[in-house]
Amino acid sequence: MFAVKIAAALDQLIAGFARLPGIGRRSAERMALHLVVKRDGLIGELIGALQAVERNVVCCSRCGALTTTAADPCRFCTDQARDGTVLCVVEDPAALLTIENAGGYRGRYHALMGRLSPMRGESAASLRIQELIRRLDTEPVAEIILALDADVESDATASYIRDLLAGRKLKITRLALGLSVGSGLAYSDALTIARAIKGRQQFANET
Amino acid sequence: MFAVKIAAALDQLIAGFARLPGIGRRSAERMALHLVVKRDGLIGELIGALQAVERNVVCCSRCGALTTTAADPCRFCTDQARDGTVLCVVEDPAALLTIENAGGYRGRYHALMGRLSPMRGESAASLRIQELIRRLDTEPVAEIILALDADVESDATASYIRDLLAGRKLKITRLALGLSVGSGLAYSDALTIARAIKGRQQFANET
Repeated sequence: MFAVKIAAALDQLIAGFARLPGIGRRSAERMALHLVVKRDGLIGELIGALQAVERNVVCCSRCGALTTTAADPCRFCTDQARDGTVLCVVEDPAALLTIENAGGYRGRYHALMGRLSPMRGESAASLRIQELIRRLDTEPVAEIILALDADVESDATASYIRDLLAGRKLKITRLALGLSVGSGLAYSDALTIARAIKGRQQFANET
Repeated sequence: MFAVKIAAALDQLIAGFARLPGIGRRSAERMALHLVVKRDGLIGELIGALQAVERNVVCCSRCGALTTTAADPCRFCTDQARDGTVLCVVEDPAALLTIENAGGYRGRYHALMGRLSPMRGESAASLRIQELIRRLDTEPVAEIILALDADVESDATASYIRDLLAGRKLKITRLALGLSVGSGLAYSDALTIARAIKGRQQFANET
């Protein structure tokens, strides 16, 4: 669309937007154009918010959760009411928040900041796995829950961590796979159903 | 996803991104999270590009094309080699660039900065129609090409302008509707085919 050269600044803005996840070249152009054409103060708001985020928002140096520079380690790590013997390992701060918002979990967290993905060039070295091992050495963790997605790369990541931690006196669990609550067999795919059968739960005691 | 409160700055950034066209709440969250988690300098680049765009990039005060503050009126308006008797009326600067990049057009432009859209609250007053009339009064325009999209709102916009300019000594045209070049009947919808038949072109002289 922008074969005609307008201004270096606009090109840079489009290139910057296009580096964000889920934003293609065409979307980036639409976004940049909107900012120039509308002139409704949004440019200034974005500059201010980006500057504030750059200054104040960080990932917790211990667990990786989003927090502020003033609260690092974060409230999940410092809350004494949380159970320090259970560590929930998640892919990133977004997954961490998804679990926290679901409610019911009161242990601590550890975000890997990615998963093993040869296609995206993410190896074990780029994940926060050494940090995980250091925490297991110094914190009273008795169980880690590998709360990763249910896809091939996440499975590989879970297996890698399990093998790495073999020999430690540590319970390692993964999230259950099965039907969604409120959903039915007709809406579940074959693999999910097979895993739900494999992971079936005792419902009544044998007499 | 962000039911847990992190930082006001992050909320502001997400709200800002979500105001961009095509960006929903969920995409905005992913974009903001990426900036915080990756820390690859992209925040700084975006801030710099936004500041440069805010300072330097404007819409031409005459035709509405994207240009720089240093070049207003823009090069389309000041290029003496272009034909000032033909004015191509487009919806916005993006459409203007699409036509310019297609090549072949050497007249001048006028961007309306929108189209009549009751649903989005865009009325004639919010379009650059008074500016168009002023230009027709002062520039030697003999033909205006209504180079708008082929949808209901664009049709309404074109009709509105045609009625407004009735009585002027002015040729008013619209873009032809028909088959795409290199495409075939099988790939065209019924309405397009009907319009292609209605707008059929003389191919050989009668003998």
